[in-house]
Formats: sequence, structure tokens, C-alpha cells
Amino acid sequence: MQPIMTVAEINRFLETDFPQLGGKDGGYLVVDVAPGTAVLRLLAGSQHLRPGGTVSGPTLFALADVAAYVAILAHIGPVALAVTTNLSINFLRKPEPGALFGRARILKLGKRLAVVEVAITPDDEADTVAHAVATYSIPPRPTDATDLPGTLIP
Amino acid sequence: MQPIMTVAEINRFLETDFPQLGGKDGGYLVVDVAPGTAVLRLLAGSQHLRPGGTVSGPTLFALADVAAYVAILAHIGPVALAVTTNLSINFLRKPEPGALFGRARILKLGKRLAVVEVAITPDDEADTVAHAVATYSIPPRPTDATDLPGTLIP
Amino acid sequence: MQPIMTVAEINRFLETDFPQLGGKDGGYLVVDVAPGTAVLRLLAGSQHLRPGGTVSGPTLFALADVAAYVAILAHIGPVALAVTTNLSINFLRKPEPGALFGRARILKLGKRLAVVEVAITPDDEADTVAHAVATYSIPPRPTDATDLPGTLIP
Amino acid sequence: MQPIMTVAEINRFLETDFPQLGGKDGGYLVVDVAPGTAVLRLLAGSQHLRPGGTVSGPTLFALADVAAYVAILAHIGPVALAVTTNLSINFLRKPEPGALFGRARILKLGKRLAVVEVAITPDDEADTVAHAVATYSIPPRPTDATDLPGTLIP
Repeated sequence: MQPIMTVAEINRFLETDFPQLGGKDGGYLVVDVAPGTAVLRLLAGSQHLRPGGTVSGPTLFALADVAAYVAILAHIGPVALAVTTNLSINFLRKPEPGALFGRARILKLGKRLAVVEVAITPDDEADTVAHAVATYSIPPRPTDATDLPGTLIP
Repeated sequence: MQPIMTVAEINRFLETDFPQLGGKDGGYLVVDVAPGTAVLRLLAGSQHLRPGGTVSGPTLFALADVAAYVAILAHIGPVALAVTTNLSINFLRKPEPGALFGRARILKLGKRLAVVEVAITPDDEADTVAHAVATYSIPPRPTDATDLPGTLIP
Repeated sequence: MQPIMTVAEINRFLETDFPQLGGKDGGYLVVDVAPGTAVLRLLAGSQHLRPGGTVSGPTLFALADVAAYVAILAHIGPVALAVTTNLSINFLRKPEPGALFGRARILKLGKRLAVVEVAITPDDEADTVAHAVATYSIPPRPTDATDLPGTLIP
Repeated sequence: MQPIMTVAEINRFLETDFPQLGGKDGGYLVVDVAPGTAVLRLLAGSQHLRPGGTVSGPTLFALADVAAYVAILAHIGPVALAVTTNLSINFLRKPEPGALFGRARILKLGKRLAVVEVAITPDDEADTVAHAVATYSIPPRPTDATDLPGTLIP
């Protein structure tokens, strides 16, 4: 399973196609892409926090969802837009102020479904703050010349 | 299982303790509380939408999470603040513009854990847009004079 | 959404195609099918129990999974065999000895995915013992003349 | 986080306290315990299979559930018996005949809740067949002299 987009290409795509993330000032930045994985960093601004400075639940959800989406996008390109069908998130530890990283790992990338695991950790790779597993539906694509890897269960 | 807070009391509590929801202008309003259930309405504003007007995933997550929290709060009062430990959400249908209702139903309200199901539906009680099940940890309370209902598995 | 199989037809199908459930002596019996729903009863035998007589976790999982599968089967017929892609189950209360009913309700029945909720309750419709939500992949079918209901998100 | 039981001790405990797994002939064997992790092997017998030789869904569920339980047990000992409150499992690939390994990793081990991730893989550490995340409730213990590690959110 090899990425077919670079970190820069994905960040540009997010800026144009997902303006609701806030672009360059929104806090989200793809920082790494490798075979089967991607890492999305969030520098939380006031819109992401609760009183007291803790990153909010919906923000952690968004970080997991976008990190997983980025991992899929990196490996199949923007021609087929995956849609989240299910996301299950466990909140493990209180997220202290500071950068958070959504570390996504593709568990399966099929023709019709993808399943991605995301660990959300702070800057210094300490204990996981939240852990999610998400499933995406991949719409059928007009030209299906290349086989997706890992298509054992469509 | 009987509610011990009124709709008005819960809305006031959300305004003071959850200002990040936006208060009276934030779009969220508790509209019903009954034995075992609660309903939270969202009138989506621009901050809740993606391009094209669809309500965003993190917003649907927030609607489910707050609706479930409200259901628990209504039945145990604000003295013990429940914390979300897990939320699993299925996105079923594209949410069209308009009001959305998070209809929460308590599956279990124990001494230490609560499990709540939330169906997110549009105005006219048509097909469910999203469905979630969430688990909350209920911290031990200083005075435990009254028994919580439904404590079959703490 | 209308069923296209009867209770008797489904029970016969389970006997021939799912012999691992044990057929007439296995304890599982479909007892009701209605628009969007199905009910599967389990009379637990020793192979389903732990020491002390409690129905085991894997048995509750199986009851939820088969009940959901039955609900889908009842509405699309045996020509397309759904495969479980995800099942999330919450164990709420200790299951006392006696009959258990898996009450399945279809949340969404699309062309490629189905999502079903199952409440597992005892004989007398008392409090839910376990609650599950499961997603199934529906393989593409050779002849796709009739539209499946509820195909808003494939 | 250090284990406080050996592989042999855990296997003996499973034999006496979980006879429903089948003891020495049941196919389940703990094969590794390390800080934060445990590995449970299953040699599937006919009772675990569907027609055609595929390991059944309830068996994969059981393998994940027991592997996670073993990981917790190894780190807190048998004095507090954890109870599964939630298990979410994704079925990724068809499990071919042969040994299966439930590789459990503790995400959080608190005073009241534990969250464990389990990857089920075949013999040769090839692609994951199924992936689960489970939450366990840890009952309060009569003597609470020693602090559990990782108690950031009870």
C-alpha cells in the first residue's frame, strides 16, 4: 500500500475542498504520510477549546475523522471521495493544552470500504488521549482501471 | 426513572456551564424531557455547516453527545458531572438543511456508568440522519444518600 | 420497507444455510417479521451458558448478529448475502436464565450497506440486557432490476 | 505498567475460572504477556467454524474479548474481575483456516475502567483479520492499597 499524494498536495487539497477546517489559520496541518499511515497535527485555537482550555469532544472527533480521511485520500487520491459511515471514539485521558496529533493507520483499504484506526496523542508521544476507529464508504469510480490494494472483502 | 430537572432548568444550566454551545444564539435548545428520555434541538448556523449547507460530522457528533448528556443530567441532576468515555456514531443519510433533533433514550443509568442511545432526525420525524450510542462515566459523589435507578450493573 | 420473506421461510433458510446455529434444536427461532423489523428468540442451552447459568458474551453477540442478519434477509431475500463488517455491543444488565429476544430494527437499508439496531431483552420485555448496532456490506447483485428502499446513501 | 502474573498463571486461571473456553482442549492458550500487552492464540476446532472452515463471528468476538480480559488480568491480578461493558469489532478479512492470534494492547488501565485494543491476525503476522476495541468495568476492590497505573481518568 503506497501513498500516491504528497503531504503538500494533501494540505493544498484540504485548503480548497475543506475550507471549514480553516485553511492555514485553522490549526490543522498534515505533517506526515507513509505507507498505510498519515499524521495530522492540530494546534488548538479558542474555537476548539472548552472553558479551562481542554480540547472539546467534537474537536477530537474532527481530528480523528480528518486524520483518517487524509490517510485514505493519500492512498487513493482525490478522485473518489470517501464518506464516513461510522466512527467510534474512546476518550481516554484529559487532553492538556498544546499540539495534538491524529496518527492514522489504515486497517483495510477495499474497493468499497476502508477502515482506519486513529490514535490522538500529544506532542511528546505520551499516552494516547483518545482512540478512534472509523469506517468509510468509497463510492464507485467512473474509471476503475487500477486495482486497490487489500481488496479481500470489498 | 424520573427526571429531576425541568427543561428550563437544563437550558439555564447549559447556558452557564457549557458556554461553548453558544447560549441562546448557539442554536441548541432542550425541547423535551420525559422519563428516560430527552430531546435537544439544533437550528444549524453557518458554524455548523460544510460547503453546500450540510451539517458537519463534528456537529452531528456534538448534537448526539450533548443530547445524551442532557438525558443523564435530567435524571441525576448537576451534582455529578458525567464524562463521555465512548461514543459510536453511524452516519445514515445526508442531513438536509433545517432543524435537527437529538432524541436521547437512556439504555442504562447505573451508579458508575450510563449508556444512552441518540437518534438524530429532522423536523418532521422522517428517517434518522444519524444514530449514536454513548457511554458516560459518572464520578463517585460526595453524598450518596439517594439510590440511582437502574443500578443493576454498577 | 416491506418484508419479502415469511417467518417460516426465514427459519427454513437458517436451518439449511446456517447449520452452525443448530437447527430446530439449536435454540434460535425467528418469531416475528414486520416492516423494518424482525425478532429472533433464543432458548439458551448449556452451550450458550457460563458457569452459574448466565448467557455468555459470544452468545449475546451471536443473537444480535443473527437477529440483524434476519432483519436484512427478510427485506432483500436470500439472493444477496449480507456480511457483517462491524458490530458494536453494549452489555447493560446481567442476563438471567430464560428466553432472550433479539429485537432488530433496520436503521438504513442501502444498495451497499445496511445498519441495524438490536435490543436484546428477556421474555417479559423488561429492561434491555444488551444493545447492539451492526453494519453489513451487501454485495453487488447480478440482476439489479428492483430498487432497494432507503438508498439515500449507497 | 508491569504485568503481575505469568503466562502459566493466567492459563491456569483460565482453566479453573473459565471452563467454558474448554481448558487444554478448547483451543485457547495465552502465549505471551509483556508490559501493556498480551497474546492469546486460538487453534480453531469444529465448534469454532462455519461451513467451509471459516472461523465464525462469535468465535472472533470471543477471541478478542478473552484476549483483552487476559491483558487486564495480567496487570491487575485476579482479585478484581473485570466485566466487559462494550466491545466493538470490525471484520476486515476472511479468516483462513489455521491458528489465530488475539494481540491485545491496553490503551488505558484506570481505577474503574479499562480500554483495550485487540488485533486478530493469522500465524504469520499477515494482515489483520479483525480489529476490536473493548471497554471493561473494574469493580471497586475491598482493599485498595496499591494504586493502579494509568489512572488519569478513573
